[in-house]
Amino acid sequence: MKALAKTSSREGLELVEAETPRPGPGEVLIKVAAASICGTDLHIYSWDEWSRSRISPPRIIGHEFCGHVEEVGPGVEGFAPGDYVSAETHIYCGRCYMCRTGRAHLCENVSIIGIDRDGAFAEYIVVPAKVLWKNDPALPAKIASLQEPFGNAVHAVKRAEVGGKRVVIIGDGPIGIFACAIARVLGARDVWLVGLSETRLAAGRRLGADAVVNASSRDPVAAIREWTGGKGADVVLEMSGSPAAWDNALRAVRPGGRVIAFGLSRDKIPWDLNRGVFKDIEVLGIVGRLIFETWYEASELLAELDLTPAVTDELPLEEFEAGFERLFRREAVKVVLYP
Amino acid sequence: MKALAKTSSREGLELVEAETPRPGPGEVLIKVAAASICGTDLHIYSWDEWSRSRISPPRIIGHEFCGHVEEVGPGVEGFAPGDYVSAETHIYCGRCYMCRTGRAHLCENVSIIGIDRDGAFAEYIVVPAKVLWKNDPALPAKIASLQEPFGNAVHAVKRAEVGGKRVVIIGDGPIGIFACAIARVLGARDVWLVGLSETRLAAGRRLGADAVVNASSRDPVAAIREWTGGKGADVVLEMSGSPAAWDNALRAVRPGGRVIAFGLSRDKIPWDLNRGVFKDIEVLGIVGRLIFETWYEASELLAELDLTPAVTDELPLEEFEAGFERLFRREAVKVVLYP
Amino acid sequence: MKALAKTSSREGLELVEAETPRPGPGEVLIKVAAASICGTDLHIYSWDEWSRSRISPPRIIGHEFCGHVEEVGPGVEGFAPGDYVSAETHIYCGRCYMCRTGRAHLCENVSIIGIDRDGAFAEYIVVPAKVLWKNDPALPAKIASLQEPFGNAVHAVKRAEVGGKRVVIIGDGPIGIFACAIARVLGARDVWLVGLSETRLAAGRRLGADAVVNASSRDPVAAIREWTGGKGADVVLEMSGSPAAWDNALRAVRPGGRVIAFGLSRDKIPWDLNRGVFKDIEVLGIVGRLIFETWYEASELLAELDLTPAVTDELPLEEFEAGFERLFRREAVKVVLYP
Amino acid sequence: MKALAKTSSREGLELVEAETPRPGPGEVLIKVAAASICGTDLHIYSWDEWSRSRISPPRIIGHEFCGHVEEVGPGVEGFAPGDYVSAETHIYCGRCYMCRTGRAHLCENVSIIGIDRDGAFAEYIVVPAKVLWKNDPALPAKIASLQEPFGNAVHAVKRAEVGGKRVVIIGDGPIGIFACAIARVLGARDVWLVGLSETRLAAGRRLGADAVVNASSRDPVAAIREWTGGKGADVVLEMSGSPAAWDNALRAVRPGGRVIAFGLSRDKIPWDLNRGVFKDIEVLGIVGRLIFETWYEASELLAELDLTPAVTDELPLEEFEAGFERLFRREAVKVVLYP
Repeated sequence: MKALAKTSSREGLELVEAETPRPGPGEVLIKVAAASICGTDLHIYSWDEWSRSRISPPRIIGHEFCGHVEEVGPGVEGFAPGDYVSAETHIYCGRCYMCRTGRAHLCENVSIIGIDRDGAFAEYIVVPAKVLWKNDPALPAKIASLQEPFGNAVHAVKRAEVGGKRVVIIGDGPIGIFACAIARVLGARDVWLVGLSETRLAAGRRLGADAVVNASSRDPVAAIREWTGGKGADVVLEMSGSPAAWDNALRAVRPGGRVIAFGLSRDKIPWDLNRGVFKDIEVLGIVGRLIFETWYEASELLAELDLTPAVTDELPLEEFEAGFERLFRREAVKVVLYP
Repeated sequence: MKALAKTSSREGLELVEAETPRPGPGEVLIKVAAASICGTDLHIYSWDEWSRSRISPPRIIGHEFCGHVEEVGPGVEGFAPGDYVSAETHIYCGRCYMCRTGRAHLCENVSIIGIDRDGAFAEYIVVPAKVLWKNDPALPAKIASLQEPFGNAVHAVKRAEVGGKRVVIIGDGPIGIFACAIARVLGARDVWLVGLSETRLAAGRRLGADAVVNASSRDPVAAIREWTGGKGADVVLEMSGSPAAWDNALRAVRPGGRVIAFGLSRDKIPWDLNRGVFKDIEVLGIVGRLIFETWYEASELLAELDLTPAVTDELPLEEFEAGFERLFRREAVKVVLYP
Repeated sequence: MKALAKTSSREGLELVEAETPRPGPGEVLIKVAAASICGTDLHIYSWDEWSRSRISPPRIIGHEFCGHVEEVGPGVEGFAPGDYVSAETHIYCGRCYMCRTGRAHLCENVSIIGIDRDGAFAEYIVVPAKVLWKNDPALPAKIASLQEPFGNAVHAVKRAEVGGKRVVIIGDGPIGIFACAIARVLGARDVWLVGLSETRLAAGRRLGADAVVNASSRDPVAAIREWTGGKGADVVLEMSGSPAAWDNALRAVRPGGRVIAFGLSRDKIPWDLNRGVFKDIEVLGIVGRLIFETWYEASELLAELDLTPAVTDELPLEEFEAGFERLFRREAVKVVLYP
Repeated sequence: MKALAKTSSREGLELVEAETPRPGPGEVLIKVAAASICGTDLHIYSWDEWSRSRISPPRIIGHEFCGHVEEVGPGVEGFAPGDYVSAETHIYCGRCYMCRTGRAHLCENVSIIGIDRDGAFAEYIVVPAKVLWKNDPALPAKIASLQEPFGNAVHAVKRAEVGGKRVVIIGDGPIGIFACAIARVLGARDVWLVGLSETRLAAGRRLGADAVVNASSRDPVAAIREWTGGKGADVVLEMSGSPAAWDNALRAVRPGGRVIAFGLSRDKIPWDLNRGVFKDIEVLGIVGRLIFETWYEASELLAELDLTPAVTDELPLEEFEAGFERLFRREAVKVVLYP
């Protein structure tokens, strides 16, 4: 089969002809309908420090996808050929303390699709049945492939408890843009998006932000103070990982407010501890999605909102280079590949 | 009357003869029975950057105290001469958004005793009746004077939700030591104290810590890993404000755990953002005490535990220099002054 | 001045000429602009068992109102003649355990406007400044007078945590109808209203209910099962107080769901304990509003939704009999009186 | 093998010779070391209405047990012959909405050991590996067999959030008695037990109650008012299911307090709705245990407290009649049977 893989220890990816995998016990073979590119895939492409420490080539990458069940392995119940599915990326062990206490997204023995095992930028993929999610047949493939990152945003916004609140989202990547849509549907009083790319800020507005601010041309804290009558935001979702954004987050949130820590940073960031303490704020680190609580919530939300404006590019798998390039240049929001 | 004051813009404090204040409308005059020295008083003594920016000499300092009502001003209800009282240090306005939504400890117009108005290192003090708390007549003066900092610790430990949990407290100052006692009474599974002073660690043990570690001679994270069978602490209370302690806190807490941010730091600290995100932890900034929910809780707890081991020094007000010196040298835990 | 009062121990109310009250220390005299009739006022009119045990005639009644400050008593700060205000009905003492721990709505010494002291169905009313709330000058008087009952609904819906949830509201009185609007704005996935009056159910639809069911012609539990694909509602707000409604609430809520107990019942109700236990549900009793957290929230919400459809009748105070009659016949939703 | 079974549709149980079961795929065969009698077993013995509607004879009963793995079926990982284990009673499907959202104890397709499939009053039992729990080898068999009901109590007390609180437990059955011990260890300020049996109340005292009241000789509400200085209990755990107890619970809890609904009642109970509403209380229905969060918590707690006083009777399986009789007469607390 056709597949996109990191074949050796250097920058770039290669379109290869790979052997079609077979489902073992408890596993399912899926014919991929669509797969979208994640920021993690850009890191692997670039072959940065993290990728070099984590990925062992050859590895087929890609973990956001949807497709149809082609074949079920021995012992699989509840799935049959033809089922339209997506998958939770974190293959949890089910036996560790975290898994046995309702926090499988923090599994101590997690294996991640497209990183620790072969992924979805291919015609076929094999995954354990336990991570599969049945999609609504009416959901277009390009939207169904986005549920994994959309679920990140759902989990983050749910933890933010946005109903009736003034909400600031910092970071105009796909998750930040999804978060705008979700906060809007979940009853936020106001949703403001802070970012650096006019294209992406415009997508944020289309998906639900009441106002946006480009941090390269205006001080976001000043804007937020103005919007909130000097009071500050009830909740800030920090989805960029930049030190400047963290400073803004701590300054923009009101005393007693909440900050969601979602964006990652290669290095430690300088943290204004006293401000956090004196403001009596809560900072909640968010990783992954609740398995499968978030998937249920995401499905409900997808029935109410339209992510189409976030899919800026759709390409055959063969033209992957164009998609990666558009993302590296921050011209695209989400790029969907069709194998 | 006799009083201890910052009389001019330089290091040190001076024992002065001041005019005995009179209670205005809604105010109460209190004859001070005992007053204890807080870390804030050390900053004011040293006349550091913060003190210089905040304090306008001449100012009588001191804010942890107890005493007896001497005279009530016009319009005061519920207090009469002879009542044995302590006081909440944060004089809240009662009219701002924070005050009107149950968060008076975050009052936007707060005035602090011994900082923004004359304090308790004196024979008499005047405070508004609304911040007064009636003490149990059986409570010794030296303990009654500690309720304000003890309340800090109560508020921090309550927010940590320690019942059945493995609890690490970093910082062997008085609040950290009080926190050991409180966590013990509130049902913590294990209480471990991390500090730098053998004297203070010993006080922590006497007040309730199951084990202590001196971070100057042993890696606290290694110790915590050993104590918790490699799992990490359920909750860490960071009460030192040092960058190294923050690194330890993030490393020592288990995934999905909670960190209480209580200690203050003059400078920004380097913060391992990714660790906080990937571990899915909650960081809760804690300032002051809930007014008066924490005072009720503190009173209940004082009926069950004995803070006497924390009072290492008792001195007449005139000998204040000795007390400050013992604290600067970290030889004392709490120093109580008697005017 | 003109006033509507219970003048003797029998059914009915009387329009009387009363002395205009004067504000004492801490009090404010308000010229009433509009006042709306509450279910409690109907009980007092009927002179039922509860009223007879609680009200001492003569008593001017009415507690939902707005107006303009006419005169401030000694010691009042923050209010001046001309201010446009409404008032929290529960005059809290500020000194009991509940008041001092952020739960003034549960004050142990509460005095209620229009019940324990003279009320707002009059040209003027005197209330303590501490219960006053400044209205947005742009808010029409008929809407401003509704904030107190609207606040009941806000508090109930906030406690229900409706974001993304399937919400059932049982009871088509004004609070139930307001709750539809609030749940809609706060991001409920679906809002369903169960009631008995076609007029009121229609008002519920106009204010935000996705669907309504008249329990006199269709089994509400069957309807809710159908709407939720057999799963049950995530949250049920019981706002009628009828035994049948409670049975429906416990049957309609999903396992692990939440029920808000708001409606009152003269007698004990038969309660299906096992169902509540086996379903692992939470039942939260809700009374009053948070003082003033709910008032802030209500103000925010009034900027986003329009309660006009709920005001079915507007009458001069003199024509109060017509308003009470329309309410006793359940033909009106809210009746606003203008003194 | 030897087994205790309901062999026909009438009162009583019969000791029978049954075929030793074999473990299927994913199942494990366990040699039972000890099994304790639950209230549910008394219902089945009596053959009451509920039992008749639920149990299909012949059925080996018993669900609280411990033992050693004898043989593992195909596909079982993580267990081996000789492992010392107990089991969660609720065999969850793992595929329904409740199971996939962290609430397996509310599984929509649950099958219960000793009710829906053969149980543990036998020399051997087969259960799916997924419900097994590995015991500390040092835990005596009679205590290990109690973990399932002990877990009920743990779950109930955890939801009650007892740290620093005044706690009333109504019901002196084994779960109520366990709850005393747990509330004590988890930091309750005071633990009071209300019951009807002097023997059991005495066991409650030994396990941690500060005081007990026999409701047949003294009004429990009066006692609780006295204990709490008129304020009421912060939390009441209702573990009896009697209508009188519910009345007491609602009267004894303070405004803003919490009531845990655990006890079951054959009939609906009369419920003082207005009291619940006006007091602003929370009622939380509790069923089962969190799988396996509660098991971890229970294990931790068993390391700190000793349930031995609760095991009043230990008998060989053959003498089961004596054990059941002692329980029907309420002379025993827990009866452990050894096959």
